[in-house]
Amino acid sequence: MEGLNLHFSRLALIGVGLIGGSLARDLREGGWVDEVVGCSRTEGTLRRAQTLGVIDRGEMTPEKAAHGADLVVIATPLGVAAELTLRIFSHLPKGALVTDVGSAKASYVAAVEPSIPPGVLFVGGHPIAGTEDSGVAASRCGLFRGATCVLTPTARTSSAAEERAGDLWRAVGARVVRLAPEAHDQMLAAVSHLPHVLAYAAVNTIPEDTIEGFAGGGFRDFSRIASSDPAMWRDICLSNRRPLLDWLKKFRKTLDALEKEIDSCDGSALGESFRAAKKKRDRFMTQRNEKHGE
Amino acid sequence: MEGLNLHFSRLALIGVGLIGGSLARDLREGGWVDEVVGCSRTEGTLRRAQTLGVIDRGEMTPEKAAHGADLVVIATPLGVAAELTLRIFSHLPKGALVTDVGSAKASYVAAVEPSIPPGVLFVGGHPIAGTEDSGVAASRCGLFRGATCVLTPTARTSSAAEERAGDLWRAVGARVVRLAPEAHDQMLAAVSHLPHVLAYAAVNTIPEDTIEGFAGGGFRDFSRIASSDPAMWRDICLSNRRPLLDWLKKFRKTLDALEKEIDSCDGSALGESFRAAKKKRDRFMTQRNEKHGE
Repeated sequence: MEGLNLHFSRLALIGVGLIGGSLARDLREGGWVDEVVGCSRTEGTLRRAQTLGVIDRGEMTPEKAAHGADLVVIATPLGVAAELTLRIFSHLPKGALVTDVGSAKASYVAAVEPSIPPGVLFVGGHPIAGTEDSGVAASRCGLFRGATCVLTPTARTSSAAEERAGDLWRAVGARVVRLAPEAHDQMLAAVSHLPHVLAYAAVNTIPEDTIEGFAGGGFRDFSRIASSDPAMWRDICLSNRRPLLDWLKKFRKTLDALEKEIDSCDGSALGESFRAAKKKRDRFMTQRNEKHGE
Repeated sequence: MEGLNLHFSRLALIGVGLIGGSLARDLREGGWVDEVVGCSRTEGTLRRAQTLGVIDRGEMTPEKAAHGADLVVIATPLGVAAELTLRIFSHLPKGALVTDVGSAKASYVAAVEPSIPPGVLFVGGHPIAGTEDSGVAASRCGLFRGATCVLTPTARTSSAAEERAGDLWRAVGARVVRLAPEAHDQMLAAVSHLPHVLAYAAVNTIPEDTIEGFAGGGFRDFSRIASSDPAMWRDICLSNRRPLLDWLKKFRKTLDALEKEIDSCDGSALGESFRAAKKKRDRFMTQRNEKHGE
């Protein structure tokens, strides 16, 4: 991280939860930022964040929080992200960098891009990190180390915005890749939004006493993401609904084929389907362990 | 575990993998058994198991392995379990206890029960434990501590068989419950076989480069069970296919409803569905942590 020419005097963190809080901790610990102003609708969240040392002070409106900030990170649930971004734009000094951490990008980026004031740098971002826990109490240093952060520049994005946002995420240990917002949403619908919907659906299918009496470690891990924040995931699924519905359709086709193999007792085809999945998943884990071991 | 009146002079372990190997380790370490004879079709497995101290000696046919054993545990993939059980029955001394560890019980129990020789004790069993790893190299002491083991007695099961098999699993730290084979299969189809099929299907739906580029911790945990042994899971799904297909049907109904909420942008219904799932899954984790903390 030496050699990064990166410094901010004031970070306005709009939304003080797991992701925003963890980013603020890392930026502060690395000396990349002097002051952190948090924004939340909930006073208790601001107090907690201040007690935990995540923010220096809190504001209850995004305009006040953004005042004088040279870095703004929008880290709220997706449902309010665009509205809050639009509210802060006119309150920023020239040269300020605005970015976000939302899990779906196309509709958010399209909603805010036409309103970027001259001299303000904006690019969408999505650090692929997090756990089923939410809230500032779950935030911690090092959450982004080894993670991938996707930046989603468009034809309107300045190279300065992309460069500075890239440095920001590299500073906290992430690997930065770039994708068009729509391509990002396709990818993430597959590897993240689809599994969340399947896990939520599976948990809702199985009676509570059956789970409590007989579920083991397989169910525990498979369903972990069903403990994720419901409001956050409602917003993600709605915001990215077309790609998500496309992947659900593809998933149903794969499931149809598996069911047919089971129903017709076609052991050799079923074994082959399971073997192909295991091979793919094992290879993912090998590559992941190599990446994180680097 | 003091006070258990349990001792075996020779365990014949038919199938030397993760579950069988771990049981043998625990029984030996606890002094519940004097000698362990392993049976595998693969000489390398027997050698490895002997080197690891899991078995004292190996035999390549179940008849030879069972000779003189007062405890037989069938721990092979389900596809061959009934056949191997039937082959050993006539080679056992009077009073021997035979049980198994299979994940589906009705068809296995129905296949072997009519042939139990007089004086031999038999009851089906299923310890709900294990990981995506398989093979004797993955076996370890303590795998069953805090786990649930389901015994599946029928009208033909002697109380002595049930009692001794119960003591066996209690000796290695499991909580023992009893269910009819068909009830067991219904429960396990829901909490275990359904999630496995969904995880295999999801992994097979998503292109490999998308997974490798963008999958994070959520996908890693959701898909862990797709790294499970394909042959073992093929056998489980086929052996328990009716209950599994029933749960898949129920799952599709839940998924239909979620998709409808997403497609129609019904945020309040979708949020409610996710909240219900989170509540159920969080409660499961609380209870599980309490159990394992005992």
